[in-house]
Amino acid sequence: MKSTDVAKLQRRAVEVLKKANVSATPKECESIEVADSGLNDVENVGLELLVYENNDRYCAKELIMFPRQMCPEHRHPPLSKANVGKQETFRCRLGEVYLYVEGNPTPSPKAQVPEKYRQHLTVWHEIVLRPGDQYTIKPNTLHWFQAGDQGAIVSEFSSTSVDEADVFTDPNIRRVPVIE
Amino acid sequence: MKSTDVAKLQRRAVEVLKKANVSATPKECESIEVADSGLNDVENVGLELLVYENNDRYCAKELIMFPRQMCPEHRHPPLSKANVGKQETFRCRLGEVYLYVEGNPTPSPKAQVPEKYRQHLTVWHEIVLRPGDQYTIKPNTLHWFQAGDQGAIVSEFSSTSVDEADVFTDPNIRRVPVIE
Repeated sequence: MKSTDVAKLQRRAVEVLKKANVSATPKECESIEVADSGLNDVENVGLELLVYENNDRYCAKELIMFPRQMCPEHRHPPLSKANVGKQETFRCRLGEVYLYVEGNPTPSPKAQVPEKYRQHLTVWHEIVLRPGDQYTIKPNTLHWFQAGDQGAIVSEFSSTSVDEADVFTDPNIRRVPVIE
Repeated sequence: MKSTDVAKLQRRAVEVLKKANVSATPKECESIEVADSGLNDVENVGLELLVYENNDRYCAKELIMFPRQMCPEHRHPPLSKANVGKQETFRCRLGEVYLYVEGNPTPSPKAQVPEKYRQHLTVWHEIVLRPGDQYTIKPNTLHWFQAGDQGAIVSEFSSTSVDEADVFTDPNIRRVPVIE
């Protein structure tokens, strides 16, 4: 991904933050992470992240999603004997988010996934999050999510984030920041 | 504090949340904690809390403060050999907050504290937080804060909250939720 494309997506993410009255400093706006999952199709598979804090005890960030952007299926595995893996709470601030977790598959789910990505989605228990709704994802459990037609902002509160430890169902995905 | 007074302050806190576009469910609005610190002077010393999540790893809440409301000086002591005490990150969402931490006292600080409460304020190193600004308070260090003339909302991201462990400089203070 070209740095000009990254900058464009960052600016677009800032516009979404403004819509939700979420303030960010100019330096933070420039540091918004564009996660394209290595599939080079960020409009469909990817998300934008504003990380407020990530220390050895807790982490907080905003996940900014454009309309129908999806974060592919993954889990946060155990990291040590003392760390059972990242636990995270998603709280919707803007728009609508369709979150899929382990459990009974939901008939007629709201997500709209391009055919080529469906083979790597194995959990279909749907949680719909609207502003003020939240859900906590247990460590080491599979999940994926997609924003609705208007895009979304999700506040994520969690234990320490160690992105490079994430395990994705799709073997083609690599979770590295796209900052060139 | 009478339950009618608590309900009134809760409603007032919800109005502040609306001003900042922070969504909360009806159930959450009813569960907003009014912390009056046991001094029975909540307009001056107290704050309102909307706790999103508090589990054994992390905690996230909104601190809602009316104009010039202050949270009295305290620290979060070590809780065990493995837990050095609560660490917290304050991020201002609305209004202005004057945070005081250990360090060189700031000349002409912005806080306006009623005379009777000044004797229990020992740290005067000022950090001014405006929307988008944040500051992380190390475990077991003294701090207190006051909202500016317009009130404020502060998002607090932290390790687990164990309020009853907090140590206040003013011996008259007890940190218990006021829900009757």
